[in-house]
Amino acid sequence: MATSAFKIAAIQMRCTDDADRNLATAEKFIRKAAKSGARMACLPELFRSTYFCQTEDHSKFQLAEPVPGPTTKALAGLSRELEIVIVGSVFERRAAGVYHNTAVVLDADGSLAGMYRKMHIPDDPLYYEKFYFTPGDLGFQAIDTECGRVGTLVCWDQWYPEAARLTALQGAIVLAYPTAIGWHPSEKKKWGASQLSAWQTMQRSHAIANGVYVAAVNRVGHEGPKKGGIEFWGGSFICDPYGRVLAEARGDREEVIIAECDPSVLETARQHWPFLRDRRIDAYAPILKRTLEKP
Amino acid sequence: MATSAFKIAAIQMRCTDDADRNLATAEKFIRKAAKSGARMACLPELFRSTYFCQTEDHSKFQLAEPVPGPTTKALAGLSRELEIVIVGSVFERRAAGVYHNTAVVLDADGSLAGMYRKMHIPDDPLYYEKFYFTPGDLGFQAIDTECGRVGTLVCWDQWYPEAARLTALQGAIVLAYPTAIGWHPSEKKKWGASQLSAWQTMQRSHAIANGVYVAAVNRVGHEGPKKGGIEFWGGSFICDPYGRVLAEARGDREEVIIAECDPSVLETARQHWPFLRDRRIDAYAPILKRTLEKP
Repeated sequence: MATSAFKIAAIQMRCTDDADRNLATAEKFIRKAAKSGARMACLPELFRSTYFCQTEDHSKFQLAEPVPGPTTKALAGLSRELEIVIVGSVFERRAAGVYHNTAVVLDADGSLAGMYRKMHIPDDPLYYEKFYFTPGDLGFQAIDTECGRVGTLVCWDQWYPEAARLTALQGAIVLAYPTAIGWHPSEKKKWGASQLSAWQTMQRSHAIANGVYVAAVNRVGHEGPKKGGIEFWGGSFICDPYGRVLAEARGDREEVIIAECDPSVLETARQHWPFLRDRRIDAYAPILKRTLEKP
Repeated sequence: MATSAFKIAAIQMRCTDDADRNLATAEKFIRKAAKSGARMACLPELFRSTYFCQTEDHSKFQLAEPVPGPTTKALAGLSRELEIVIVGSVFERRAAGVYHNTAVVLDADGSLAGMYRKMHIPDDPLYYEKFYFTPGDLGFQAIDTECGRVGTLVCWDQWYPEAARLTALQGAIVLAYPTAIGWHPSEKKKWGASQLSAWQTMQRSHAIANGVYVAAVNRVGHEGPKKGGIEFWGGSFICDPYGRVLAEARGDREEVIIAECDPSVLETARQHWPFLRDRRIDAYAPILKRTLEKP
């Protein structure tokens, strides 16, 4: 495992109903990232389709595929050719009736370095993921690659400090969050700014609390009925272990953003902000309870 | 326990070497807060003295006092008179050789509703707290008052998502963080903005992740040698369960800030951002380990 600095790219893209076109878009941007010197590229959540979880529709299970399968194979070819690590996202068919929202990591030689099945599954209006995805049972994952160890988490996971902690403690240099999040257009005026701020705040907090880089990779564009649907808010960003945003995408366009992840910065950050030193592991056991309110 | 909305005040003040003067300052601002309709007032960490942890000095143990003791007695008189809940902070002498950094809660009738002994103790240049304070052994605390349940945490705790989670899960409406944090003047130019931003980001993230109000209460002013010491950065704030800052103090002056804590807003926030619903308590056990890196 390399421990030197490397450039990471977050690929913010639009997604359509054409799986091949989406793969071509991803490929175009991964090539661009590699050309710019990135050694790791991260794609948004479920990038091969529009965000189908806006409805509960049995026909959408057709979109699922095995891991390894067509998407990992395509990404593997690209990672081998460009010698770049790719963090991808797959609607995984594990068995008839068992589907997952899965992050996959292709190493720079095209091998499947590892996978992570989304542990926290949302279910909210237009985000009906509990209908489609079985919660992950691989636990939290930090995966070794030629760039170093990458922690994979997916979208809803980003609201859970436990997920970031358990991934970072495994030695991840960077936590990568493939994401599909946006506004209900009817709510945007009142809630848009605070929702976006909360989303960024949570992920910056994971970087700070754990002394780790974070890459949040969202899609962009409006999907669904014109007077409804979801306006994906983009805003992909990469921040350092102090929570400083190093690179940030706009909200309204496809974009590749690149920043450097330097393990020596991570080590210095943890020496100066030594939060991991003082964790009260003797006192955290009740975190395994659903609530601590007395009945 | 009341479950209606109430106003909370964060009292940002300067602290001097004169314990009586500091108490008088606290009293002045608590009266002001009560007059403005606040039903709960929170004081900064160790408000009865300058921040003595800048050096390791045995003579400073003279500042310690029991709980209950002079400070809780003085605050109790005030809370009874004004019918206001007070979150205070005491350098606690528990026994010869056993001292704590303790948050105390005086209920609106002057009774000592509860106490919390700081669980996470820092030790960094000019913050030599491990010399003075035994880490708390009461665990995390949410304390019932006439306003509702208040979670008490202290300064360094603010960097620990586990602390916020374990306190919020007990049903706290608001997490109160008495704090003494500032810049090393020599670092301010390079690091000041990112340190302050990280501090605010972490505490806003606790509000968001847990769907709870947060009140961060810092002191203000420079203490210590002119060419050194600590410039306490003020910036006290109160945020809502969406992480929106409702009130914020400046960095350079004493100030009372006030905001409303409404349990019904908290409940609505948790229904719309249902993070507590989906926690993977089956998968969090490794959080009780120091690290998960393989040797």
